[in-house]
Amino acid sequence: MDLRACIRDIPDYPKEGIVFFDITPLLQKPEAFQYTVDALAERFADCGASKIAAAEARGFLFGAPLAYKMGLGFVPVRKPGKLPYKTRQVSYDLEYGQDTLCMHEDAVNDGDKVLVIDDLLATGGTVGGMLNLITQGGGEVVGIGFVVELGFLDGPSKLNGLPHEYLLKL
Amino acid sequence: MDLRACIRDIPDYPKEGIVFFDITPLLQKPEAFQYTVDALAERFADCGASKIAAAEARGFLFGAPLAYKMGLGFVPVRKPGKLPYKTRQVSYDLEYGQDTLCMHEDAVNDGDKVLVIDDLLATGGTVGGMLNLITQGGGEVVGIGFVVELGFLDGPSKLNGLPHEYLLKL
Repeated sequence: MDLRACIRDIPDYPKEGIVFFDITPLLQKPEAFQYTVDALAERFADCGASKIAAAEARGFLFGAPLAYKMGLGFVPVRKPGKLPYKTRQVSYDLEYGQDTLCMHEDAVNDGDKVLVIDDLLATGGTVGGMLNLITQGGGEVVGIGFVVELGFLDGPSKLNGLPHEYLLKL
Repeated sequence: MDLRACIRDIPDYPKEGIVFFDITPLLQKPEAFQYTVDALAERFADCGASKIAAAEARGFLFGAPLAYKMGLGFVPVRKPGKLPYKTRQVSYDLEYGQDTLCMHEDAVNDGDKVLVIDDLLATGGTVGGMLNLITQGGGEVVGIGFVVELGFLDGPSKLNGLPHEYLLKL
C-alpha cells in the first residue's frame, strides 16, 4: 500500500513556511484506511495493552478503530473543558506558548497497560503530554504508534526512551 | 448488551440544570464498544453508503470505527480553522448564538451516498449542519445513525424527514 500517495501536502499551513501533511485523502480511501488500522494492529499485536489512548481530534480517527479492531478499551485525551467528569491535566510547551491536555481521572488506573496512538509525530509535544497523563494515573505505556513520523524533527526525543512504531516516515 | 449501564450521567454539565450523558465508560468497555459499532453496521448494512461523515470530536469515536468495519471512506467534519485544505462551511443556530462546521470541498461529490453518524442526537443542530454540508457538495444522505437519542428534545425535526436509527433512547 502506497500510503505516501494518500497524504496531501498543504504548503503554508497552519502558517507560512510550514508544510502540513493532510491525512484526509487516506480516510477517503477505504482500502488505505483499513490497511493503516490493520498494519498498526499487527505491529502491536503482542504489546500486552489493555487500553488505547489517543488525543482529539485526529488521534481519535486511528485510535478508535484500532481499539475496535484489537478489542481494547479506548481513552480519549482532550483539550480543557471537553471532558465532563473529573480530570487530570498536563501542560506542555509549544514552540510559542503552552498547550494543555486532559484525561478523565478514572480512565487509566494502577496496572493499566496503555498503547498510545496518534496520526503524526512532529515535535512530540502532544504525545509527551499523553505519556505524563498516563503515568500520573499509574498506567504503564507499552507501545506508541503513529501513522506518519516526521524525520526532520526531534519528536522521538520526547518519548521517554520508549520504543515506537510508524507506518510512514517523511 | 445494556448500553444504558455504560453511559454516565453528569449533572449540571456543561451548565446548571443540564444532565450530560457521558459515553466514555462505554469506550472503556471493549465488548460494549465493539457491540455499538457492530450494531450500527448491522442497521446500515443495506443503506448503500459509499462514505461515512461524522463531526469532531465525539462523532469520530464511532464514525471512524464504523467506516473501518464497513469498508467505507470517512469524511471528517470539523470546526473552522481545523481542516487544512479548501472547505465548505455552514453556520447553524444554537440555543444562544451560532456554531459553524466545515468540510473539505472535495470530501463529498456529486452522487456520493453518505451515512451520517454521531454519538448523540440532542437538539439536532450539529447533524442539521452536516446534512446541509453534504447536500451542498452534491451528496445524498442515505442514513443517519446515533448511539443515543434524547427523547425529550425535538432533534428528529432537524433531520429533513430522513429516516434515522439509534441504539439507545434516553
